[in-house]
Amino acid sequence: MVFGGSGYLINSITPFTIDKHRHAHFPEGITLDCDMHLAPVDVAYCTYGQLSEQRDNAILLCHAFTGDQYVAETHPLTGKPGWWERMVGSGKPIDTDKFFVICSNVLGGCMGSTGPMSVREESVKKELWGTDFPPITIRDMVRAQYKLVRYLGIDKLFAVVGGSMGGMQVLEWTVTYPEMMLAAMPIATAPFHSAQNIAFNEVGRQAIIADPDWRNGRYWCEGVVPARGLSVARMMAHITYLSEKALTRKFGRRVRQGSSADKSAGNFTGPLSLFGDIFEVESYLRYQGSSFVRRFDANSYLSITRAMDWFDLAADYDGELTAAFSGTSVRFCVISFSSDWLFPTSTARTLVRALNQATANVSFVEIETDRGHDAFLLDEPDFDRTVQGFLRGVAEHVGLY
Amino acid sequence: MVFGGSGYLINSITPFTIDKHRHAHFPEGITLDCDMHLAPVDVAYCTYGQLSEQRDNAILLCHAFTGDQYVAETHPLTGKPGWWERMVGSGKPIDTDKFFVICSNVLGGCMGSTGPMSVREESVKKELWGTDFPPITIRDMVRAQYKLVRYLGIDKLFAVVGGSMGGMQVLEWTVTYPEMMLAAMPIATAPFHSAQNIAFNEVGRQAIIADPDWRNGRYWCEGVVPARGLSVARMMAHITYLSEKALTRKFGRRVRQGSSADKSAGNFTGPLSLFGDIFEVESYLRYQGSSFVRRFDANSYLSITRAMDWFDLAADYDGELTAAFSGTSVRFCVISFSSDWLFPTSTARTLVRALNQATANVSFVEIETDRGHDAFLLDEPDFDRTVQGFLRGVAEHVGLY
Repeated sequence: MVFGGSGYLINSITPFTIDKHRHAHFPEGITLDCDMHLAPVDVAYCTYGQLSEQRDNAILLCHAFTGDQYVAETHPLTGKPGWWERMVGSGKPIDTDKFFVICSNVLGGCMGSTGPMSVREESVKKELWGTDFPPITIRDMVRAQYKLVRYLGIDKLFAVVGGSMGGMQVLEWTVTYPEMMLAAMPIATAPFHSAQNIAFNEVGRQAIIADPDWRNGRYWCEGVVPARGLSVARMMAHITYLSEKALTRKFGRRVRQGSSADKSAGNFTGPLSLFGDIFEVESYLRYQGSSFVRRFDANSYLSITRAMDWFDLAADYDGELTAAFSGTSVRFCVISFSSDWLFPTSTARTLVRALNQATANVSFVEIETDRGHDAFLLDEPDFDRTVQGFLRGVAEHVGLY
Repeated sequence: MVFGGSGYLINSITPFTIDKHRHAHFPEGITLDCDMHLAPVDVAYCTYGQLSEQRDNAILLCHAFTGDQYVAETHPLTGKPGWWERMVGSGKPIDTDKFFVICSNVLGGCMGSTGPMSVREESVKKELWGTDFPPITIRDMVRAQYKLVRYLGIDKLFAVVGGSMGGMQVLEWTVTYPEMMLAAMPIATAPFHSAQNIAFNEVGRQAIIADPDWRNGRYWCEGVVPARGLSVARMMAHITYLSEKALTRKFGRRVRQGSSADKSAGNFTGPLSLFGDIFEVESYLRYQGSSFVRRFDANSYLSITRAMDWFDLAADYDGELTAAFSGTSVRFCVISFSSDWLFPTSTARTLVRALNQATANVSFVEIETDRGHDAFLLDEPDFDRTVQGFLRGVAEHVGLY
């Protein structure tokens, strides 16, 4: 394993990069779905727990779109807890006393793995890839993870687990490297990106591209970042991660104290009443937008949303999803959330039907919650029990426990 | 009635204004909810059919957010048919052989009624209002409509009808001027704007404000329009007007012919594969965005979305919606669409429950459709029959037919 090491560039102008991420360096690179060969490839990752002597207790976690490898430790950039600290740790549902947990930053990401912010080795001036970064797919992300897993000396993963775009990677793993894994847990995800999801992604991309500070993707040359566009993209996406009920419960129509639109306070007029903070939900969204800009790269946003849009597991099987899973020996646990309208239960059922038709070993759980898509990141005891129960069941079945 | 006339300014720099709209001019203006007095006020409008001698056959149509008064005639700016040409006309569900139909551009709009693009009479330099336009509410829009109705010599409207934000105006009419109307048909609407709807509106506003061409709202002074921001706002809003199913049916994951991402055509790579047209749904949304910019004013967008966000009928009644309708003699027909997630049936039921508690005369119809919020603008035979049936029923009841 490599900690730090050479070859990884941090561009000082961007506020969201940090000096070093633990990573593996693959000078030989990988051939992408677009037929381009990308080399070198760095895969930044974190691990938790110990790999057993038999090397049979590894769980690969696949992070969601704007997540990263900092699963269960303080994030080096934001200072916040890891995104699944609740789920991963000693005695937790994904128990690091039993399992060796790996999570890597996706290809195309901006937290250490090769992406638009990485240096093009071929360039004389050590330029960054920027928008010349080749178009990547979910399968390309999985290829990079595969290299990391091999590099860590693991022949077979105990499980691959992930939510949202992480769940797409889980599904891609079961189709591309089924022999490399025992179990799969795709959460709050789908075997293809829907027209509505493509539409939302496209609006986010347009918001970024519309920002003059995007500079045709070369903002990193000019010491700026398209902060406004990226912030608008994030605000919109954030709405889709929550349910209408959750927004109503959290914010309702409450007006922010002291804001300009507090009618009863008699300060309803003037320009601020049009543009100041008014409803709490607006203030919340603005915060989500502005804090995101400090940790995420706009070109990564473009690149990764495109990868999601292209995701369609059935496409290589003449549109027959069942054929993608034909003869699989992977054990599946599909999880959806009742109020998730971005990746609704109806689509999860489509996946489960295809798995059943392929006579796969599959269990399906819909968690009742009003918290929407983001529920997989939140405190949902039923969900935790499901994750823990499935992993324990498979572990007992194969004699790991 | 006034056709054309003086005092109405058209700014030549904006591509979406036209020389003349039929309008009524009210030099005395109106006092707004914000306690400012706005004068003068112009109300641009269209009418269809003939006012009866008894002046008892007038239906006021209230248009939705980005609609206007051109209901059933070719739009003078876009050249397209009126937005409810299907519904309004001789022998149509809103039958102009029987009814005199009025529709006015809302206060704050950009199709002739006083709004941010209008001249401030008080300003020496004949400046436009811009972002100094006072904050308006749905009730202020209704006050302007009331003046127009009186101006047309009508003491009592047969009905007030409208969908979406038009439905908010209908509800506001029943509370503010109940003695002025027989019947109310609020369609695909709600008695308050939800947290999720406020959130979507806020993202649209932020997209506009983030556009440097917005120029702090004074773009009209500098010969530019915030086209990119307004386009992004429209693209996002447009998604919310459709259902996931409708998007899937209309576009699915189809790739636009000849686009750069047609993998099978072998042109998957290169910068265009990131940013060119790819999925049909993207191309459609971009068209929606760019065509909107040519007919709508950005400051009107800000002003009117704010008015929607503030809408909460129960607010003046200690949060008791029932109290708002107490003792009403208006006959209600509430209509919702099963796949409308912007103004869902559940909220329509809240409205109907409040009306029932107020012992109002109310019928409620949920139209089964997968076309989402926009269904009220589309060809939905069940919906047409409902509108026609309700109007005919009330007309027969009062001896109008």
